[in-house]
Amino acid sequence: MLRSCAPEACLRNSFETSFQHQISVTTRGHGDTHDITDQVASAVSRSGITTGIVNVFNVGSTASIGTIEFEPGLQADLPAILDKLIPPSRNYGHEQAWHDGNGHSHLQATLQGPSLTVPIAGGKLVLGTWQQIFHLECDVRGRQRTVVITVIGQ
Amino acid sequence: MLRSCAPEACLRNSFETSFQHQISVTTRGHGDTHDITDQVASAVSRSGITTGIVNVFNVGSTASIGTIEFEPGLQADLPAILDKLIPPSRNYGHEQAWHDGNGHSHLQATLQGPSLTVPIAGGKLVLGTWQQIFHLECDVRGRQRTVVITVIGQ
Amino acid sequence: MLRSCAPEACLRNSFETSFQHQISVTTRGHGDTHDITDQVASAVSRSGITTGIVNVFNVGSTASIGTIEFEPGLQADLPAILDKLIPPSRNYGHEQAWHDGNGHSHLQATLQGPSLTVPIAGGKLVLGTWQQIFHLECDVRGRQRTVVITVIGQ
Repeated sequence: MLRSCAPEACLRNSFETSFQHQISVTTRGHGDTHDITDQVASAVSRSGITTGIVNVFNVGSTASIGTIEFEPGLQADLPAILDKLIPPSRNYGHEQAWHDGNGHSHLQATLQGPSLTVPIAGGKLVLGTWQQIFHLECDVRGRQRTVVITVIGQ
Repeated sequence: MLRSCAPEACLRNSFETSFQHQISVTTRGHGDTHDITDQVASAVSRSGITTGIVNVFNVGSTASIGTIEFEPGLQADLPAILDKLIPPSRNYGHEQAWHDGNGHSHLQATLQGPSLTVPIAGGKLVLGTWQQIFHLECDVRGRQRTVVITVIGQ
Repeated sequence: MLRSCAPEACLRNSFETSFQHQISVTTRGHGDTHDITDQVASAVSRSGITTGIVNVFNVGSTASIGTIEFEPGLQADLPAILDKLIPPSRNYGHEQAWHDGNGHSHLQATLQGPSLTVPIAGGKLVLGTWQQIFHLECDVRGRQRTVVITVIGQ
């Protein structure tokens, strides 16, 4: 958007800005879920950005990010349904090449996806009361995960 | 990006900006789909942003957003395939704790996802001719839904 | 974010900017996967943006974008599991209306999704070592695809 930006106009403009923060999530293995909403909210708060979006991204190909009502029932149901849809098996091409037992982990993480974008209004995440941001470990062993939180807005 | 911004250079700069708009979607219950492309396009138009992205986000954990060719066949096929993959059942942990009959709604909405980001070029959404933005109700009853549209760009 | 922008302060500010680039992907038909990480990384590099996000979007309703360890095993496993979950069938409503044999293509592409957002730090994509950005053709014939890459940040 072309804006006139003489010094006096400039003083009144709101400029877009971005802020990035990394967090670590220590997982205990396949199906371990973490509620990372508070950590994302904290990054949004520290950014000073009041209107915009925040992207939450899992670095690595065997874990995923999304939203869910984070209660014990669904914490178990989500990895269970993914295991039903994409079960552990030695028949995946990935297994036949690499024999590391995590072909289903890759496919589950790819289908659920590593990336989530949530709006920000009034300096806060816009989420439903029973809608939290989760990290899901799909790999077969515990991992130290890096999640990148990027806030964009003004 | 560090930019030199003496007043005269400043006049020629394009600064990023953001724009946010909420819409309501009234749904009739499980499997109800709405084409919200026009409402997203209208928000993009009003933002004045010509190059960038728009994020479309369903607030709440039992509905989802995505793209599809919005014709009657697929409007029925999409909820049908989700019901086949993640059927209604009393066996979900969520059901055993909450008895509200919508365990499958949560899981379907989480897998399809609440968030979609679409590029903007020339002040318009970049979508295929037969690619529309849909809202899908996964819950078992009609709901009044809030969808947040955030436009970022210049 | 309201910023004071007297000329001398202005010189020190980093302003958000955006950059957009389109690439073509020529596909050979159902299940054909392409690693487009290098093309996305190149767009990020040309944008000059060092901190932010990049959105990668498939224009059209029968192909999708995501991340995966791009090795031959998973390149075959991903379309195979999608065909197992959402098999070709003449029973889809889409087939009964249009008879073009690609009802499953639409549903697979919608579930996997057409849009991926990845963070940028230090001017580079933040991805795991074995995490690549893929394009997956879900349609039943080869297509010339347009993928829009939009970089937002500073």
